[in-house]
Amino acid sequence: MSRILIGELSARAGDDVTIAGWLHRRRELSRVTFLVLRDRSGIGQVVITDPAQIRTVGEILPETVVRVRGRSVASAQAPGGAEVHDPIIEVLAAPAETPPVDVWRPELAETLPLRLDLAALTLRHLRERAKFEIAAASIAGFRRALAGLGFTEVQTPKIVGSATEGGANVFRLDYFGRSAYLAQSPQFYKQTMVGVFERVFETGPVFRAEPHDTPRHLSEYVSLDAELGFIEDHHDVMAVLREAICGMLDSIRRDTRRSVAFLGLELPDVPPQIPEVDFAQAQALISADTGEDLAGENDLAPAHERWLGEWARREHRSEFLFVTGYPISKRPFYTHPDPERPVASRSFDLLFRGLELVTGGQRLHRYEDYLAALRERGQDPADYAGYLQAFRYGMPPHGGFAIGLERWTARLTGAANIRETTLFPRDLNRLSP
Amino acid sequence: MSRILIGELSARAGDDVTIAGWLHRRRELSRVTFLVLRDRSGIGQVVITDPAQIRTVGEILPETVVRVRGRSVASAQAPGGAEVHDPIIEVLAAPAETPPVDVWRPELAETLPLRLDLAALTLRHLRERAKFEIAAASIAGFRRALAGLGFTEVQTPKIVGSATEGGANVFRLDYFGRSAYLAQSPQFYKQTMVGVFERVFETGPVFRAEPHDTPRHLSEYVSLDAELGFIEDHHDVMAVLREAICGMLDSIRRDTRRSVAFLGLELPDVPPQIPEVDFAQAQALISADTGEDLAGENDLAPAHERWLGEWARREHRSEFLFVTGYPISKRPFYTHPDPERPVASRSFDLLFRGLELVTGGQRLHRYEDYLAALRERGQDPADYAGYLQAFRYGMPPHGGFAIGLERWTARLTGAANIRETTLFPRDLNRLSP
Repeated sequence: MSRILIGELSARAGDDVTIAGWLHRRRELSRVTFLVLRDRSGIGQVVITDPAQIRTVGEILPETVVRVRGRSVASAQAPGGAEVHDPIIEVLAAPAETPPVDVWRPELAETLPLRLDLAALTLRHLRERAKFEIAAASIAGFRRALAGLGFTEVQTPKIVGSATEGGANVFRLDYFGRSAYLAQSPQFYKQTMVGVFERVFETGPVFRAEPHDTPRHLSEYVSLDAELGFIEDHHDVMAVLREAICGMLDSIRRDTRRSVAFLGLELPDVPPQIPEVDFAQAQALISADTGEDLAGENDLAPAHERWLGEWARREHRSEFLFVTGYPISKRPFYTHPDPERPVASRSFDLLFRGLELVTGGQRLHRYEDYLAALRERGQDPADYAGYLQAFRYGMPPHGGFAIGLERWTARLTGAANIRETTLFPRDLNRLSP
Repeated sequence: MSRILIGELSARAGDDVTIAGWLHRRRELSRVTFLVLRDRSGIGQVVITDPAQIRTVGEILPETVVRVRGRSVASAQAPGGAEVHDPIIEVLAAPAETPPVDVWRPELAETLPLRLDLAALTLRHLRERAKFEIAAASIAGFRRALAGLGFTEVQTPKIVGSATEGGANVFRLDYFGRSAYLAQSPQFYKQTMVGVFERVFETGPVFRAEPHDTPRHLSEYVSLDAELGFIEDHHDVMAVLREAICGMLDSIRRDTRRSVAFLGLELPDVPPQIPEVDFAQAQALISADTGEDLAGENDLAPAHERWLGEWARREHRSEFLFVTGYPISKRPFYTHPDPERPVASRSFDLLFRGLELVTGGQRLHRYEDYLAALRERGQDPADYAGYLQAFRYGMPPHGGFAIGLERWTARLTGAANIRETTLFPRDLNRLSP
């Protein structure tokens, strides 16, 4: 008899059925034992009243994989509204030992490092599963939104020949006896591909040799990247970003309704026009409120981002806020200056609930502008020959952005540490599992 | 006036319009000059009859990015059925020099290495663009098919702590003063995630330090991976693979119709049941036909795969062929043996047009089986502690497969070398652009 999912039990009430899954929990009452099973659809219970069978199942360890044939019986008390009676239980695989974590408890009690050490087990917890379902829906929604706007998906190399962007925080690799590096972003390649498809996106890993052990940095994370040509300025990029975020939230609402409810999440509304504040104006607002002297600072500290998040919520009833016009000196060399105010740039960050979630902007597009920008920073254009090729042969005005998937999921689910929304995180100290 | 795409010109015949794109080609007749422009929708022409303007545009280099305002006029002779008259032409970005490749020619004449060196330019060729649109549709179709079958997308780490799978062909990395490695496949992680979601897929880069310079190997390629639990045997995996391939072809048919026609491709039909041949039987067929003695061989050579491709086409009218039952000694340690014939495995390769496109099979799922399999191969289970965690705590019978995206696109488009279906290939000799 072919297997049904536990979530289908109540629709099959009265039928003989086969279910399969993990022994989530055993509850033993005086004359009855309940086996709570977990499969990909959720949890459900098997009712055992035969004394001999009660003794047998008393030996089965949690997380044992079992197949159960029996009768589905409607029951208001059962999770999901139905349970399995008169079961025949077959063990498909037994754990080698009692699992060191109680996966069935409402909350995992272990510390984060221990949870990460035991990822193969702790990820089975229903709350963990729900978080990563939301991450999966987000990435699917991102792709769907961009495909709907005429973007083409690209796959660019993660092994690169020179450590041009970022410099210090790059991982070096032995490449057949030569040095190579792991790409810190698909930036250069996605720009090149604007010359081919005009509008491109990529979802994939990026690598930063991040020497700081903070709750919001990892050595490897998933970047949702987009780049588009024939823009007027960075506001065209911001409009696409807004559509991408809407698409991500639409997918979450549509495909992970149960997980959102289970985690008790409040999903944000995206205003038709996300409020925007200029960097200098943001500094003035913070200074006026806190008395801090921010003159000479060319970036926002995390505390400032949190302040702005509160401000946007209060003044604009928005959980999203664009900060634009960052000093050009703070942005990478390919950033397009604001022609009317050349110390400022046509760049933006998107803050979500007081945390930087996205960085983006308009890029330079003229070959001679790249030569000038590199020389101004004391860099040799020859080191960028491969990258500059695209601009040598005609590139339209363009820009793009990158969303950090794990940060997004963390902010959405209220996780305090980005490691909680990464399946197998990599940082200064962690390389396994 | 906001820009329309060149593909919209004929629907807008009679209107004043703005288009933008690259100068694909200039054709100069005695009293008229045609500027052929290229944008993401295709190519179209601008008609210039004013002698002064003819002189001005005579200076514009190919690949110059221009914006053109003018009137759309229906014309049976024009590509796309309409052209732009009375143009006002604005240069958005000029190339630094005459491009060294004629992007407009029907076929690129350059050698493959030169084409790859100049990727930023040569990828603009319409045939190149069409190939990578087909690749993008394939990956989207893969994801859609699997999501429709209850699979959850996962993102697993590409930096790993030990060089367990494959050994020799692994890239080593300096990880904060320690050694780390680039993942050769998401195999171990996707198996672990079967313990969480039952059915998972991933699309992402994998890395092989491939010391052979062949037309079908790269150091980095895109792997479309799936893994599913609660299977009876490898045939359940093969059935999902068939659905994935159908999904990829559906997407190509639906979303890249124009590119398929432009490249003149014949897309394969997928038989309701893809024919299957046992490894030993395949050897016997080849021996009988060619007289080769294959006794003792435990893998198929490329020539044998080609022979089988021809055989499947002739005998089964199928461009796809499953080869099953490979000797267990030739497969990785996690391969599930055939219980009725333990020297054989529950593994398969899928040949497409005579080339191995997919490898897959059922995996071991019991902890003690892993310990035995590793010890039998002289390996220390302690080296696999992180990996074995999932099996320590209960795993269902499961299996999966991996499709090489670039091989698929190459086979589909008739490219002789996998580098032709990789945007920026990486191999023994090539690290840039």
